[in-house]
Amino acid sequence: MNKVRPLAPESVDVGAEMRAIGQEARGAARTLAIASRDAKDRALLAAAAALRVRTKDILSANLRDVTGAKGRGVAAAFLDRLTLDEGRIEAMALGLEEIAALPDPVGRVMARLERPNGLVIERVATPLGVIGVIYESRPNVTADAGALCLKSGNAVILRGGSDSFHSSAAIHACLVEGLKAASLPEAAISIAPSASRETVAEMLAGLGGALDVIVPRGGKSLVERVQKEARVPVFAHLEGVVHVYVDRAADLDKAKAVLINSKLRRTGVCGAAETLLIDKACAATHLKPLVEALLDAGCAVAGDRAVMAADPRVTEASPEDWRTEYLDAIISAKVVDGIDAAIEHIETYGSYHTDCIITEDKAAAEKFLREVDSAIVLHNASTQFADGGEFGFGGEIGIATGRMHARGPVGLEQLCTFKYRVRGDGQVRD
Amino acid sequence: MNKVRPLAPESVDVGAEMRAIGQEARGAARTLAIASRDAKDRALLAAAAALRVRTKDILSANLRDVTGAKGRGVAAAFLDRLTLDEGRIEAMALGLEEIAALPDPVGRVMARLERPNGLVIERVATPLGVIGVIYESRPNVTADAGALCLKSGNAVILRGGSDSFHSSAAIHACLVEGLKAASLPEAAISIAPSASRETVAEMLAGLGGALDVIVPRGGKSLVERVQKEARVPVFAHLEGVVHVYVDRAADLDKAKAVLINSKLRRTGVCGAAETLLIDKACAATHLKPLVEALLDAGCAVAGDRAVMAADPRVTEASPEDWRTEYLDAIISAKVVDGIDAAIEHIETYGSYHTDCIITEDKAAAEKFLREVDSAIVLHNASTQFADGGEFGFGGEIGIATGRMHARGPVGLEQLCTFKYRVRGDGQVRD
Repeated sequence: MNKVRPLAPESVDVGAEMRAIGQEARGAARTLAIASRDAKDRALLAAAAALRVRTKDILSANLRDVTGAKGRGVAAAFLDRLTLDEGRIEAMALGLEEIAALPDPVGRVMARLERPNGLVIERVATPLGVIGVIYESRPNVTADAGALCLKSGNAVILRGGSDSFHSSAAIHACLVEGLKAASLPEAAISIAPSASRETVAEMLAGLGGALDVIVPRGGKSLVERVQKEARVPVFAHLEGVVHVYVDRAADLDKAKAVLINSKLRRTGVCGAAETLLIDKACAATHLKPLVEALLDAGCAVAGDRAVMAADPRVTEASPEDWRTEYLDAIISAKVVDGIDAAIEHIETYGSYHTDCIITEDKAAAEKFLREVDSAIVLHNASTQFADGGEFGFGGEIGIATGRMHARGPVGLEQLCTFKYRVRGDGQVRD
Repeated sequence: MNKVRPLAPESVDVGAEMRAIGQEARGAARTLAIASRDAKDRALLAAAAALRVRTKDILSANLRDVTGAKGRGVAAAFLDRLTLDEGRIEAMALGLEEIAALPDPVGRVMARLERPNGLVIERVATPLGVIGVIYESRPNVTADAGALCLKSGNAVILRGGSDSFHSSAAIHACLVEGLKAASLPEAAISIAPSASRETVAEMLAGLGGALDVIVPRGGKSLVERVQKEARVPVFAHLEGVVHVYVDRAADLDKAKAVLINSKLRRTGVCGAAETLLIDKACAATHLKPLVEALLDAGCAVAGDRAVMAADPRVTEASPEDWRTEYLDAIISAKVVDGIDAAIEHIETYGSYHTDCIITEDKAAAEKFLREVDSAIVLHNASTQFADGGEFGFGGEIGIATGRMHARGPVGLEQLCTFKYRVRGDGQVRD
C-alpha cells in the first residue's frame, strides 16, 4: 500500500504544507501535460484495479467516516452520499475504465489556418495546468475528479468534505498506485493532508500561484463561498433553477411526458425542473391536465392564482418560489402571457443552467433556443438530459453556469485550454 | 451631435453612476446578443462615417488632452500615443469598416452531435455579455475595443486613461451615433463619465454584478493592478518576455533574419523578442555572427560570459535581465546546453506569451512546439507574427497570456462564449 500523508496535527503549519503540495503539483503538471495517452490510460486502469483489490481497506476507512458522521447526527441523505459499499466501489472502478477508454483531449487540433505567407497555424488543445477541486463528503468524487483531471493532462489537488476524509484518502491511495504503475509523478493527484478548514482557505488563495483554476462541487453555499473568496478563476457550478415552458402550440401528451420526466425522474439533480411556465393561450386546455399529472405523480405544486384555480391541491407560490431550486418533489407553476413573458421570467429568475420549451411551432422553438441565454436550452426534450454523459462527453466534473471558459457539462474538453503552434520556413514580418 | 455625458463633478456619486451604467449595459447586452449581423454592421459603418464627419471635433478634443498632458510633463512616447491627426482618425474609421466586413462570430455552430436517442445537440457561439475595457491614454483603443465588442454582440463599458478623456469621449460619441443609426441601444457602448480613479475601482468591483469580464489593455502595472484587484474574470494580457532559441541544427541565415526581425522590426510590441538562447553545440559557428548582426543593427546585447566573449560590445547580463521585457533595442542573450535547457529557461523566466525555435531538425522543432507551454510557439518564423491580424482574426483586443477562456490573440471568437441547443421530439431520460 502506498504511503498516505498522515493527518496533520493542529500544530503543523497547514498553509505551508498546502503550498508545498501546490509546488509539487505544478512540477507534476509539466510532466503530465506531455505524458502519452498510453501512460495516462495505464494509470487509470491500474487505479481501477487498485480500487478492486483494496475494497476492504476502503470500506473500513469509510466505516470510520460513517461512524463519525452518525455521531455528529447528520441527515439521512448526507449519510447516503457518504456511505460506500462494494457496488459503489465497483462503479468507481468502472468509471475510471470508462474515462481511460475516451479519446485523449490533449493535442487535438481544434483549428488549422494556412496563411498567405506560408505560415501554418494550428490551435491545439493543451491542459489547463493545476486544478483544485473542492467538494463535499461524497467519496466517489475523489475518483471521478482525479481521473478526469489526469486524463486531461492536468495535475489536481483534491479537497473533499471533512466527513469523508478517511474514505477519500483511501481512494486517493489507489489513484496514486495507478500513477506509480504508469511511472507518472505521484504529485499529479494530491489530496489535502487534513480536514482543517485552513486547507480550503489556502486553496482559495491559490496556493502561492500554483493553482490555475478551482472547481467547486457541491451545494449552493459551498459554491457561493468559493466564488466569493477565490483569488483564482472558478468554474461556477451554481444551482439549476430549471424551467419548462409549455407553449400555446405544445402537444399535450408530449408536454406531460417531458414535464413529468424533467421534474420527477430524479428530483435531486441540478437538471431537474423547478418551475413550470404555461402559455395563457393554452391554459384552458393544458393547465389542468399538466397540474393534475404532477400532483397525481406525487409532486407538490406551488402556483399563482391561475394555477391554484386548476386544482385545490395547489398551494400559493410566494415570491421566493420563483428563485428556488427545490431538489425535491415540488414545482412552482405560473401562467404567462406568451413566449416573450416566459423568456422574461427565465431571464429574471433563472440561473442560466438549463431551460426547455415544449411546442410544435418551429419558429417559437427557434426563438426560445436563440433568446434564452442558458448553458443548455432544449426543445421538446427532458431537462434531465443536462448531463455530460447524455451529451456524449463521457463523464463530467459538473455543469458550469458561468460564461468564461467552460459552460454546460464540464468534461475532458473543457478541462483543457489551447495554444497556437506556428510552423514556418524563415518567414519574417514586413 | 449626440449628447455626451458631462464630466461628473467631484460631488457626484461616481460609484452609483457607474453602477447605473452597468445596469443599462446589462439590458443593452440582451438586445445586442440577438441583434442581426446587418444591424451590427450598419452601426459600425455609420460610426466610421461619423468619425470622418467629426474629425475636427475629435482633433479639438484631442488638442485639449494633449495640451493638458504636456502641462503635466509626460514622456514623448506617451504623447505620441495620445496625439491624433487626420491620418490616425482615418485609420480608426477604416478599422471599423474592416471589423464590419468580418463574419459574425455569434451563432456559429462550433460542434454538432447526434445522439442515439435522436437528440441533436449543437454548441453555438454566443456573446460573453458585458465587457469592461480598462486602457491607457491611447484614444484609438476606444474605437477598436468598442467595435470588436459590438461585432461580437457584447455590450462594453470603456474606461480609458485620464489623459485621453476628451479624445475618447469624442470618439465614443461617434460610436453612439453608429448605434443610433442602426436602432441599437446606446448603452451597448458606454464610457466612464469621469476620469476619476473611482471609476476604475467600481469596474474592478464588477459594477454590482453587471460586468462579465474585464480586459485590461496597457502596461504591466495596469494589468497587474487589474488582475490583483478585480472581483470579476480578467483576460490577462501580461508582458511578453519572448524567446528566440537557436538550436544546433539552425540554418544561420534563417536564424539571423528571424532573430533580427523578431527583435527589431518594432521593439515596442509585446511579440518583440527579448531573450536570445543559443545552443552550446552551435555556439562556435552561430554565436558571433548572430551577436554581431544584432549589435550592427543597433541593438544592445546583455549576455552571459560566453556571449560576452563573442564581442566586446556585449555587456554583462544581470539576473533580472532574464525576466525583463525591454520593449526597446536591447536583448538578453545566453548560451544553453541544448533544447532541454532552453525549454527549462523559458519555463523559468518566460511569460507564456510567444516563443520561437530556429532549427532544421524537425524532431527538435516538434519537441519545442509540444513542450513549451506558451500561448504562441513558433518554428522558423518571427515572433512578431504574434498578432491577431497576422493570424487572420482581423483585429484583436490584446494577446492573452492567461489560460482560462482566451489565450493568444483575443479576436471576435474569443470574445464569445457558447451554449448548447438541444432539439428533440419528446425524448425523456430513462
